[in-house]
Amino acid sequence: MSKSKAIVYIRLKEGVLDPQGKTIAHAMSNMGYTEFESVRSGRFFELECETRPDLEKRIDEISRKLLSNPIIETYRVEMV
Amino acid sequence: MSKSKAIVYIRLKEGVLDPQGKTIAHAMSNMGYTEFESVRSGRFFELECETRPDLEKRIDEISRKLLSNPIIETYRVEMV
Repeated sequence: MSKSKAIVYIRLKEGVLDPQGKTIAHAMSNMGYTEFESVRSGRFFELECETRPDLEKRIDEISRKLLSNPIIETYRVEMV
Repeated sequence: MSKSKAIVYIRLKEGVLDPQGKTIAHAMSNMGYTEFESVRSGRFFELECETRPDLEKRIDEISRKLLSNPIIETYRVEMV
C-alpha cells in the first residue's frame, strides 16, 4: 500500500497571548540578543499514513478535532 | 531600521522516543483514523528581529543555545 506524509503546523491566532514566546524573547534579550523583538511559539506534527482518496479531508478533520484548539489556534496542512 | 522574520523548526532526532507523538497516534486510531501509522511532534518559533549583517549566525547561535536541546533535537532555520 502506498504511503503519504503530511505535516500539520499549529500556531496561536494573532492577538492570543503567548507566554512561552514572551519568556523566550526576554531570555534572548538577557543573553545579549537584543535584536529579537517578538517570539511566537507553535508546534507541528509529522504524520505518516496509508494513502487513501479522502486522506486530505481526514487530516483536516483530525487537525481540527484532535491536534489543534480551534478557539485559539489555526492550523496549516502541508503534504510532503 | 529594516526588519527580518525567521522561523526555527525543532524536531526530535530520529530514534529519540516521542511519547507525545505516540499518544496522539493511539488517540487517532481509537477515533477510527487507523491509516495514521506514526506521529512525530515538533515545535517552531517565529522570530521578528531587526536586520543586521550577522543575523543568520546569531539565529543559529540562539537556536543551539536556547531554543533547542542539541543532544536530542535538530533544528532548521527558515528566513521568511
